[in-house]
Amino acid sequence: MASYKAPLRDIHFILAEVFKVDPLWASMPSTADASMELADAIFEEGARICEAELLPLNRQGDEEGCTYLNGKVTTPSGFKAAYQTYAESGWVGLGGDPEYGGQGLPKMLTVMFEEMVYAANTSFALYPALTAGACLSLLAHGSEELKKTYLPAMYEGRWAGSMCLTEPHCGTDLGILSTKAVPNGAGHYDITGTKIFITGGEHDLTENIIHLVLAKLPDAPKGPRGISLFLVPKMLVTEDGQCGAPNQVRCGSIEHKMGIKGSATCLMNFDGAAGYLVGEANRGLAAMFTMMNYERLSIGLQGIGLGEVSYQSARAYALDRRQSRAPSGAVSPEHAADPIMVHPDVRRMLLTQRAYNEGGRAFAAYVGMWLDLAKGQPDPVAAQKAAALVALLTPVAKAYFTDRGLDTTILGQQVLGGHGYIREWGMEQFVRDARIAQIYEGTNGIQALDLMGRKVVGDQGKAFKLFHQEVSVDIAAAEPSDPRAQALNVALTQLSQATDFVIQQSSLDANAIGAASCDYLNLFGLTAYAHMWLKMAQVAKQGEGDFYRAKLATADFFFQRLLPESGAYLAKVLAGSDTLMALDADLM
Amino acid sequence: MASYKAPLRDIHFILAEVFKVDPLWASMPSTADASMELADAIFEEGARICEAELLPLNRQGDEEGCTYLNGKVTTPSGFKAAYQTYAESGWVGLGGDPEYGGQGLPKMLTVMFEEMVYAANTSFALYPALTAGACLSLLAHGSEELKKTYLPAMYEGRWAGSMCLTEPHCGTDLGILSTKAVPNGAGHYDITGTKIFITGGEHDLTENIIHLVLAKLPDAPKGPRGISLFLVPKMLVTEDGQCGAPNQVRCGSIEHKMGIKGSATCLMNFDGAAGYLVGEANRGLAAMFTMMNYERLSIGLQGIGLGEVSYQSARAYALDRRQSRAPSGAVSPEHAADPIMVHPDVRRMLLTQRAYNEGGRAFAAYVGMWLDLAKGQPDPVAAQKAAALVALLTPVAKAYFTDRGLDTTILGQQVLGGHGYIREWGMEQFVRDARIAQIYEGTNGIQALDLMGRKVVGDQGKAFKLFHQEVSVDIAAAEPSDPRAQALNVALTQLSQATDFVIQQSSLDANAIGAASCDYLNLFGLTAYAHMWLKMAQVAKQGEGDFYRAKLATADFFFQRLLPESGAYLAKVLAGSDTLMALDADLM
Repeated sequence: MASYKAPLRDIHFILAEVFKVDPLWASMPSTADASMELADAIFEEGARICEAELLPLNRQGDEEGCTYLNGKVTTPSGFKAAYQTYAESGWVGLGGDPEYGGQGLPKMLTVMFEEMVYAANTSFALYPALTAGACLSLLAHGSEELKKTYLPAMYEGRWAGSMCLTEPHCGTDLGILSTKAVPNGAGHYDITGTKIFITGGEHDLTENIIHLVLAKLPDAPKGPRGISLFLVPKMLVTEDGQCGAPNQVRCGSIEHKMGIKGSATCLMNFDGAAGYLVGEANRGLAAMFTMMNYERLSIGLQGIGLGEVSYQSARAYALDRRQSRAPSGAVSPEHAADPIMVHPDVRRMLLTQRAYNEGGRAFAAYVGMWLDLAKGQPDPVAAQKAAALVALLTPVAKAYFTDRGLDTTILGQQVLGGHGYIREWGMEQFVRDARIAQIYEGTNGIQALDLMGRKVVGDQGKAFKLFHQEVSVDIAAAEPSDPRAQALNVALTQLSQATDFVIQQSSLDANAIGAASCDYLNLFGLTAYAHMWLKMAQVAKQGEGDFYRAKLATADFFFQRLLPESGAYLAKVLAGSDTLMALDADLM
Repeated sequence: MASYKAPLRDIHFILAEVFKVDPLWASMPSTADASMELADAIFEEGARICEAELLPLNRQGDEEGCTYLNGKVTTPSGFKAAYQTYAESGWVGLGGDPEYGGQGLPKMLTVMFEEMVYAANTSFALYPALTAGACLSLLAHGSEELKKTYLPAMYEGRWAGSMCLTEPHCGTDLGILSTKAVPNGAGHYDITGTKIFITGGEHDLTENIIHLVLAKLPDAPKGPRGISLFLVPKMLVTEDGQCGAPNQVRCGSIEHKMGIKGSATCLMNFDGAAGYLVGEANRGLAAMFTMMNYERLSIGLQGIGLGEVSYQSARAYALDRRQSRAPSGAVSPEHAADPIMVHPDVRRMLLTQRAYNEGGRAFAAYVGMWLDLAKGQPDPVAAQKAAALVALLTPVAKAYFTDRGLDTTILGQQVLGGHGYIREWGMEQFVRDARIAQIYEGTNGIQALDLMGRKVVGDQGKAFKLFHQEVSVDIAAAEPSDPRAQALNVALTQLSQATDFVIQQSSLDANAIGAASCDYLNLFGLTAYAHMWLKMAQVAKQGEGDFYRAKLATADFFFQRLLPESGAYLAKVLAGSDTLMALDADLM
């Protein structure tokens, strides 16, 4: 009973009106072929496949889940056919390099489409998302031969990809992994070890699966600098590029999870499997992070997509369900009760969902813009600045999108009352499916440490200054009396104060970064959303009609009813590490 | 893999040391038979049954769920035998009236035990909780004949109870219900209608189930004042008190839900079933609210119990799981990595859990104390004051316990990273089981409206003044320089400001109450927890040893890292209803 229409009007508003992509894309060779007209056409076709092909499989996919038998995984009914349609329509290679058969479209465009796919069917979305991420890593670090052999079939969607990092004893701490790679004399390696939690490690959607596997060479240095990346195909590829004999890789079982039940989460056994080195020996972690950073933004979009489908479904229910009367008197006296949309608290829930979804969507486009600029901007200084902003903002996007995504799906479920808890209504599935996004591709705690430790303290706030500058420009461009700009300025000042405090503390207290990280990331994300809401409001107040009125009302809701949380986050950051570290471990 | 030991030390601390129950109980005839010594013995025995009998059934109960066949419901394996043990040990009638076979123990005592049952097995806990609530309503409103016929078997646990309110078209808005009651000339009524979402409406645990059913008499006034309450047994009871012929009540199906899968959620068809009027005609809603208020506090305890088992399990994992090094240098260099308990952000999650659990437990005792005083205090003025505080604090307890309960189970799940998402670890079940507590027995939005509208604005802040006074006394008793007392004073002032604001606004703006309600309740709950934390800290600082040190450290964490949220809630309340009501329904 989920209601979902891809938010095409909002996407157009963000790309064309807020970020003015036509002149932006025209300014760089790498995006010069794209235009808003093309983007709108792509989104319309994308919306069709998401609404008509993927959404209808979502509920049943959750009930059925994936099944495992003798090393083989079967995806839920309909997934295979839908995947074929999806791949044949060219969606897997949307952002891929044209040299190897990708469509080379800007990241600002692909993030908007990805959100739709997650909204319609998160479990399904993960298969092409992993493939696209594996392609990115291969493209950046693989040899020409590897790229020619694997990328075209992956962009086509004939072959899928997976990312094999975690082992039973190591998730976050990859430095201690034990999968081994031994040179076998034939120019490649024998890979042996067990990997767990491998999304799409095995399935029936494609004829081949290309695993990117972290492993250690003999005599590799200990710790994270002794890890290499290998490409391990499920089926060995013959010289003419066809699938040949099976490799020594086998799925040992699949996990039974809280959600994303249509996505196969696999335990993978590598038993002397043939693997090909990707990039340099012992530099595997960096190569894998090319993929990981892609996935982080992608997983962020999972949070927004699920937030959006939850919002639309809750909104439809609130317009339909009649219960009690409006506080100001009956609005439909001809019925026994009014639609629950009349109640301020129901509106609070829906507007919170909306403010997070639309703020997040704009921020996804914003991060996408810096990614496009980092890649395509001819001026190296400008490109470097863009890259620094991407590095800074990626953990914020991943964690803040998904934390607010969970909040949002919970609110949508709450709007339905008891029906929200019943499986057939679908609202509780959005909560379960959203929950994993806070955990995988680096837990949100790890994102916060990356932000606070590496990205902010690590360069003594240099990248943060770039962000501060960008926000300040937009504040300065608003009327000084604009209450939204003023509110954003307060939050930005609080964020700066938090930044300075932690940078200073970190030289005195080893626990300062970890003590502040989570609340700092929340303060950062909230400020970043406020920045987006100011940008959107500045455009919307020039417009006329319902869309702009609703946008401005949602902006006001955000500034008055969500942004005030910034002060609490600052207070928590300023509390330092004392209360956290006071107790011995056994007293905790 | 859940770790759970009933928190006996903390319970003893709260009851004996913070609330000094021995002199309190001795001061009232209704509780004079109780003592802390007796309570400790009961808790020890209660802990045993929860840890040894109920906890081991919890995971499997979730996987198996209840099954429905031809009107009969089978509970998960082991539930029936455990229920028999539970009933035979006298746990169902723990708080029941001794005149009818109950044990008459103080509410302060029973709430502590209830928390343990929810912690060990929430699905199981709901069966006796519904029974105890039904008994309470029957005791308060039923005729002597009904009480004599039904209460003893219900207290014994031979018969269970259920609460039948919701219908497909009405949940919150009971005024529009359509189940009918027609006098049948034999002194009772024929009940006809369909009820949904009936917890324990049908199951295999007991030989009879006593339904309390809301229905309308012919020619009853429209709306909530035309509703009567009926007792409808599943099996008709013969004159000698035995189960006779089946009544015309049938379970039509059970719901497939997000969680509490071992608890049967039933659709019940009443087809001219024999029903007995409980209390006066057309006064059924008030009679049902006796039960409902009981259930509200009980469901609150579900939030705390699940928070506690999640905390204990996450804590065990954090002491065991090794990943990365402590920021200040390796603490166990003999291993490849340190236990994750060394990380400040892991501690932040665990301390948040703990601060909510222990604050909530104390507040449950506090509400229990006012319940005991309202019932047993001989001085009518003091009893009235206690009753006013119970009415004020019950919605806070229900909603704040369960909202923080969900937060807490989510944090516990997060501590386990990827393993938290896997079903066999059990952490995700706590989240799913906790989620319903925010929805049933009146959604938390309804609790907030009850608090803000009826309990605060409804008496123009009179009951609130009583609460304010109670908190102020404890602030005044602390050293003026005590930072905890100062912080509590800030929050109390903010809460007062919010209270005054909404009372004033409500005369001008029909939407003022609904616009403020949810944030107001959160501000209230946070302040109430701060009050408990001050009370606990005042006692703990007199003590020596690990327990008191940990208590004080958790108090400091609460005051420095959680209480600062109060300012954000106040800001949201003060934002009023404008941003919520700005848009027409179709633009929302």
